[in-house]
Amino acid sequence: MSTDHGTAADRERALTDEVVAGFGRAAAPRLREVLQSLVRHLHAFTREVRLTEREWETAIEFLTRAGHITDDRRQEFILLSDVLGLSMLTVAVNQPRTPGATEATVLGPFYTDDAPEIPLGGDLARGAKGTPCFVSGQVRSLDGGPVDGALLHVWGADEDGFYDVQYSAGRSAGRGRLRTAPDGSYRFWTVLPTPYPIPHDGPVGDLLTAAGRGPMRPAHLHFKATAPGHRTLVTHLFVAGDPHLADDAVFGVRDSLVVEAERHAAGPAPDGTHPHRPWTSMTFDLVLVPGTDT
Amino acid sequence: MSTDHGTAADRERALTDEVVAGFGRAAAPRLREVLQSLVRHLHAFTREVRLTEREWETAIEFLTRAGHITDDRRQEFILLSDVLGLSMLTVAVNQPRTPGATEATVLGPFYTDDAPEIPLGGDLARGAKGTPCFVSGQVRSLDGGPVDGALLHVWGADEDGFYDVQYSAGRSAGRGRLRTAPDGSYRFWTVLPTPYPIPHDGPVGDLLTAAGRGPMRPAHLHFKATAPGHRTLVTHLFVAGDPHLADDAVFGVRDSLVVEAERHAAGPAPDGTHPHRPWTSMTFDLVLVPGTDT
Repeated sequence: MSTDHGTAADRERALTDEVVAGFGRAAAPRLREVLQSLVRHLHAFTREVRLTEREWETAIEFLTRAGHITDDRRQEFILLSDVLGLSMLTVAVNQPRTPGATEATVLGPFYTDDAPEIPLGGDLARGAKGTPCFVSGQVRSLDGGPVDGALLHVWGADEDGFYDVQYSAGRSAGRGRLRTAPDGSYRFWTVLPTPYPIPHDGPVGDLLTAAGRGPMRPAHLHFKATAPGHRTLVTHLFVAGDPHLADDAVFGVRDSLVVEAERHAAGPAPDGTHPHRPWTSMTFDLVLVPGTDT
Repeated sequence: MSTDHGTAADRERALTDEVVAGFGRAAAPRLREVLQSLVRHLHAFTREVRLTEREWETAIEFLTRAGHITDDRRQEFILLSDVLGLSMLTVAVNQPRTPGATEATVLGPFYTDDAPEIPLGGDLARGAKGTPCFVSGQVRSLDGGPVDGALLHVWGADEDGFYDVQYSAGRSAGRGRLRTAPDGSYRFWTVLPTPYPIPHDGPVGDLLTAAGRGPMRPAHLHFKATAPGHRTLVTHLFVAGDPHLADDAVFGVRDSLVVEAERHAAGPAPDGTHPHRPWTSMTFDLVLVPGTDT
């Protein structure tokens, strides 16, 4: 109900209080906490910028467009969260840096549960175009001991900057899962990541353009590592020297995750294969934190 | 780029600063101001509640569902803005109360530009079910003088709580526009408003249920008044005694907009008609603020 006295600012604050009180009846304390905080902050934003009615309409239209472009293969709301830094902030809040452990970064919209299992040393490119890349390293626990049988999910874009699922729903390439050896080591072939734009032919792309920001992500390879007795780690390996390391569209870069890609002429590789064309290699160790996921 | 030193809180704030700086390149100063403020407030919310990754996923799923249920006749994002009090706050920010003038409230999702023109004293129900209601009043300027030829758009729900457009895209009933007489007076017939729920079979309805809130709006009739030399007024007339005046789902009630509905037996009405069944009447004067819309 309205407050008929006081200044305009008093009446605006009274409205916020009324809405906060309205959410005070939520049975679940956590839901109450989250919704009341969301209302306070969204109202503070609206009051602070003196949001116009035309701007409010623009926001409604933006969300409507985002909803209509979203389907099984395109997730505009995740892209929106990404470019507002909310995805990375959620990672930072939930997976604060543990000294000595590998830093986490965003999951992104292209993870799938059903990546094919590949043998240690196998090739997960499976038709993805690009320069062959041999990736190897060790998964260790925070105390330095190797993690035997850790499950690594790895996924990346091809040299045109597209993930398999962006081509067609059934396609699987540039993605796989494998398990570490008893000494914690792992190795696989894939294609060298290249920088690429996030999907930017929708409202989020228009937002970036209006904001004078680019849609590019620096070259990276996604890792998700799970192992008994350890917390799940979702992270990227970034390729050193990439021109977009300083302006990642989704704010996911962490200095500690940047790795050199060594370039090699066609010829013998450390796993006994003999690539017939130039290839690259990268080394990336993963250090997991003991514990369980919450 | 990451900050590798400091506390977890330092690193979270550094991320927020990075995103705010990222939006500092927007060419339009107003866009920069709005986006940077939005980022600061959404990040402050995320940090304050320590949003979990599962809760973040729930938010993405919620927005996706809202996008997919939204079409030409259903606008879930406006409903979301409404139940969060953001629609009413935007009205309060843009149309602060002018002492002596009629208070504004939310437009709602059911306004259409193409309401049929009806003569002064005509019936805009045009098939909408409900108890006949004779509405009359005067449109005045803030100095007390009558406003001749003010255009009134009026729209309301039928006794089942549905607007015409909720039945089918082409239907028009319970809606019309008319002009005031030289003495500023107006009068029309419609049906008596009744309380009704906002559409609650979608994600916003689920949110209200989880929050222990109801979807009801107290009985009201929408008015949009435009007149040369005056600011547009969008408001409601609310029916006194309604059980939902204190818990309007969209926080739109203003005490000054609540009007008594007088009940009458079948028989002569003030405009010379003779309704054959019981009818009601309400009086509602509108006081407009001189000026132009911005």
